[in-house]
Amino acid sequence: MLMGKVISNVVSTRKYEGLQGYKLLVVRLTHTAEPSYVVAADTIGAGRGEHVLLTTGEPVRYGLHREAPIDMLVVGIIDQEPVFEEAD
Amino acid sequence: MLMGKVISNVVSTRKYEGLQGYKLLVVRLTHTAEPSYVVAADTIGAGRGEHVLLTTGEPVRYGLHREAPIDMLVVGIIDQEPVFEEAD
Amino acid sequence: MLMGKVISNVVSTRKYEGLQGYKLLVVRLTHTAEPSYVVAADTIGAGRGEHVLLTTGEPVRYGLHREAPIDMLVVGIIDQEPVFEEAD
Amino acid sequence: MLMGKVISNVVSTRKYEGLQGYKLLVVRLTHTAEPSYVVAADTIGAGRGEHVLLTTGEPVRYGLHREAPIDMLVVGIIDQEPVFEEAD
Amino acid sequence: MLMGKVISNVVSTRKYEGLQGYKLLVVRLTHTAEPSYVVAADTIGAGRGEHVLLTTGEPVRYGLHREAPIDMLVVGIIDQEPVFEEAD
Repeated sequence: MLMGKVISNVVSTRKYEGLQGYKLLVVRLTHTAEPSYVVAADTIGAGRGEHVLLTTGEPVRYGLHREAPIDMLVVGIIDQEPVFEEAD
Repeated sequence: MLMGKVISNVVSTRKYEGLQGYKLLVVRLTHTAEPSYVVAADTIGAGRGEHVLLTTGEPVRYGLHREAPIDMLVVGIIDQEPVFEEAD
Repeated sequence: MLMGKVISNVVSTRKYEGLQGYKLLVVRLTHTAEPSYVVAADTIGAGRGEHVLLTTGEPVRYGLHREAPIDMLVVGIIDQEPVFEEAD
Repeated sequence: MLMGKVISNVVSTRKYEGLQGYKLLVVRLTHTAEPSYVVAADTIGAGRGEHVLLTTGEPVRYGLHREAPIDMLVVGIIDQEPVFEEAD
Repeated sequence: MLMGKVISNVVSTRKYEGLQGYKLLVVRLTHTAEPSYVVAADTIGAGRGEHVLLTTGEPVRYGLHREAPIDMLVVGIIDQEPVFEEAD
């Protein structure tokens, strides 16, 4: 899983019908060499500013209630932002 | 999902038969460290200049009407281009 | 799909039996931040110098006549090399 | 598979129910051009500081006892950290 | 498929049982912008120093004799290391 921080909601009025009912969150990936933002579906109620675990790709379907073209899913909220020492 | 902006159509006269009937769009990925362009199938009518959500890989099949060798799909149109502050 | 340019054939005498009969092409990925070369199977007859669309990963199987450990497939030939303006 | 070093555990009180019971480890990817950290499930008892092999994506499911939205799995512990010479 | 060069074997005494019996090779990816090393299963007898084709992700399963959490597989040995001219 990747680690990231929830930045905001995504408002998408026109979308594929299978995405209806899923909350879509903008997540900034953290702990990567270069920053980037992705959009993930959320079923556990993650809120802005929280650090989360993201599952990507095909394994996402095991966390959805029905099949949908969704390739990123918030699967956990990290209790504390991980900080790593250089020695690691 | 990744975020991107629709740039143009792709004209491909010779293509795998399973791709016939799908509109193919060139999309510039945004909110990534380095810019790049990909081609995605579109079933919701995204137009040039619009900001879209892209699903990639195997989950794409849940958004297609029939099986096809397509690995990127426009699944939503973002109402407003997301802008993030440095503090995020 | 990714965009690329066909560079050459790959000659591989010893290979997994499931790959027999597939033409394998070296393709230089274009429109990405950093150049790289990949190898893709081809079933539509792409030739050296042509610009092509590549599907990667699991969706490749929908474009193969039988199951094979192939993760990149030429699915279309682009009529004209896409050129994008900075304003895009 | 990717190679990495186990850095720490991840504490996630609120998570998708399918992740309950899996130990989640922060792993720093090694032998890549740019360092990054990921989170992987572990079923073989890898400990902090050990060098491990990570499987990602859909093949992870063949290493899980039940279906779960997990996309990275520790599948082996490397006996010795690989060191490569420039000539390689 | 990606191209790479076989560097060495991986010795992993403790590993997921489904990996038993597979030779695991360290492969340096070539023809990419930035060098990196991965570990791939091998069923065709690739040896140190040989240039190989690697399939990654879910399509790997079509090259395995039984289901296993393996996401990279050597599927071919390239007869000659590809060299590309700048004009390509």
